[in-house]
Amino acid sequence: MDPQREALLALSLLCEPGNRLVSTELTRRDATDTLQWLLADRDAPASVVARERLAGRSPADLVAEVLTAAHDCHARPITPLDDEWPSRVVDLAELFDETDHYTGPPLCLWARGPMNLAEAVTRSVSIVGARTCTAYGRYAATELAYGLADRDWTVLSGGAYGIDAAAHRGALAAGGPTVCVLAGGIDHVYPSAHDRLFAQIADTGLLISEWPPGASPRRYRFLVRNRVVAALTLGTVVVEAGVRSGARYTARMAAELDRPVMVVPGPITSPASAGVHQLARGPAPVRLVTRAGEIIEDLGPCGTDAGLTHRSPSRPRDRLSPDAVRILDSVPRRSAALPDRIAAQAGVPVEEARRILPGLAVQGFLEDHGGRYRLAIDAPPTSPQPSAEVVS
Amino acid sequence: MDPQREALLALSLLCEPGNRLVSTELTRRDATDTLQWLLADRDAPASVVARERLAGRSPADLVAEVLTAAHDCHARPITPLDDEWPSRVVDLAELFDETDHYTGPPLCLWARGPMNLAEAVTRSVSIVGARTCTAYGRYAATELAYGLADRDWTVLSGGAYGIDAAAHRGALAAGGPTVCVLAGGIDHVYPSAHDRLFAQIADTGLLISEWPPGASPRRYRFLVRNRVVAALTLGTVVVEAGVRSGARYTARMAAELDRPVMVVPGPITSPASAGVHQLARGPAPVRLVTRAGEIIEDLGPCGTDAGLTHRSPSRPRDRLSPDAVRILDSVPRRSAALPDRIAAQAGVPVEEARRILPGLAVQGFLEDHGGRYRLAIDAPPTSPQPSAEVVS
Repeated sequence: MDPQREALLALSLLCEPGNRLVSTELTRRDATDTLQWLLADRDAPASVVARERLAGRSPADLVAEVLTAAHDCHARPITPLDDEWPSRVVDLAELFDETDHYTGPPLCLWARGPMNLAEAVTRSVSIVGARTCTAYGRYAATELAYGLADRDWTVLSGGAYGIDAAAHRGALAAGGPTVCVLAGGIDHVYPSAHDRLFAQIADTGLLISEWPPGASPRRYRFLVRNRVVAALTLGTVVVEAGVRSGARYTARMAAELDRPVMVVPGPITSPASAGVHQLARGPAPVRLVTRAGEIIEDLGPCGTDAGLTHRSPSRPRDRLSPDAVRILDSVPRRSAALPDRIAAQAGVPVEEARRILPGLAVQGFLEDHGGRYRLAIDAPPTSPQPSAEVVS
Repeated sequence: MDPQREALLALSLLCEPGNRLVSTELTRRDATDTLQWLLADRDAPASVVARERLAGRSPADLVAEVLTAAHDCHARPITPLDDEWPSRVVDLAELFDETDHYTGPPLCLWARGPMNLAEAVTRSVSIVGARTCTAYGRYAATELAYGLADRDWTVLSGGAYGIDAAAHRGALAAGGPTVCVLAGGIDHVYPSAHDRLFAQIADTGLLISEWPPGASPRRYRFLVRNRVVAALTLGTVVVEAGVRSGARYTARMAAELDRPVMVVPGPITSPASAGVHQLARGPAPVRLVTRAGEIIEDLGPCGTDAGLTHRSPSRPRDRLSPDAVRILDSVPRRSAALPDRIAAQAGVPVEEARRILPGLAVQGFLEDHGGRYRLAIDAPPTSPQPSAEVVS
């Protein structure tokens, strides 16, 4: 194996993913030098941990061990040196986060499934949200993912219950591409009830993880994983989220990476939508989305294939001039009236009313009773009812 | 009566409200001169209509007739010359609208009820929406209006079925001030089923209209009225609205007047919320609101009494350092483990783990079994379950 690639794999195993110390060092040295630097007898926590993790083995032995385990569970490593590497994740290097040192770019992604990761995420959207979602949230995630997959957009999410699973299922239902980002080894099905779902995803899409086979999911790893969910795609949609939610962290990372953050509104009576509505109130700019077409639209130039701008239905009275509308609305329904009375009501000169009224009768809005006018009984659809507050 | 006030009343009766020709003229001449100018023998439609409406009477006679009718229905005229005049409506003079010539400021507002109009609208919000609303929309409008009225904010709306009525009822339920803006004479109860609601509003709040007693509501008048609903208050909240809706016109007028426009989100599956969600997608800036406190907050400096910023609940683990969280999440639940195993999992140096683990045990997160640690069975509320995707 290429020594640089082997060193990258070793680094990815000896540090927790996102470790900024190591990713910063990698911008200054190559991977083999960084590995040597890391394992030197220094006090930095990352170095201490790395030596402890090796437990006397050589880095090459450790890599070989993990590659064997990966082979057994059909997982392949993807490093920045591989064709499949999704280069977009390097944007994480630009993040500056004082409180969390685990936001650096991944050094390696373990993948299982037939898709090419770089190609899969070219046109991709993350759909994230609460585990404890409502039936409404599940419906929304499924519908949006279906619509996106149907237009050949890749849906990406975590592997949790709730919104994550609904998003994958929607994409799978459309026969579309879907990518599931795990927070533990690919051989570790968590939650275990997603056994079959993960198998389906691995059959047609991709299961990926920063953690090597054998690593178990840990709570803090879900947050660390979320930065990759945000970084891999063109934008992130939050479907349902309580006021405390990992999905909101994903949204924050997407915003910091200058990726569009979109939210699906819900009833103000639903606690499951409370976090989403808080996100929508800022401070970061957030777009509200209700359909797959709107998501694609909001992803900018890449979204120009959407072609789904929503137009208001048109009605016959829309084609009338403002004066004609005023006259029409002033014509009585029950007994016919003379033009001068109608004109006075409408605030339109009589002469103008005399010119307009016959035209309205020809178009079927009015009945002409020998120079007096009343509304037609079978006027065009949704014709005005003068005293109905239809537009209020 | 003051001749200028009488001339203003006459002008308000001889032109349809919002007529820009007349309101522009009033910025150049006083009211008596403008009336004389209007009634001169000119071809302008407004002049023709004015002469037709006089039908031979003098302006003074017409005003006297209408004042008698107003007296009979307990309505008083409020003109820019009166103390009660809500000066905020003059912002309408600044609007430039090529397609609609009926957006000028009102010349007179007819009012019925015990409140002083100028005072009533000082701290006020418009709540508008669809007539054909859902139970959800009705609930939201009622709740928001109740919350606003409870904090002594005036709620203002139209008099239609649906959201309008729900807003008034919410404000009334809180014993708070409410103002109903009609699109016909105050003596004209429309819809007639709102007989009792209007009587309640007139008892404690205000019924107001630009149209004099005797004028019947006409469809186009509702749109003309909506500009006053937008102009009278500090901001407008849209609760539910289809894609074609007068409420959206009110929102547009509010935006053009630089008043905050707020929307209440709803399910993406509800056509009654479709217009609201469209509004939220721009192009004008729109704020999403879910509680009365947020509305007050969004109305800017006037809203500083809100004091209702929503804070996330805090949990014991929130006070832990990032390293302590990683260690805690790496402690096994079932069998106790040594610090070095926990440290390797957490990616934290062993020495650091040895320092942190006893503290976590003291705080009740862990059990110390002679130097080995496992999670406490009765850990503090919402303590971590290492393999549970609680934050995903």
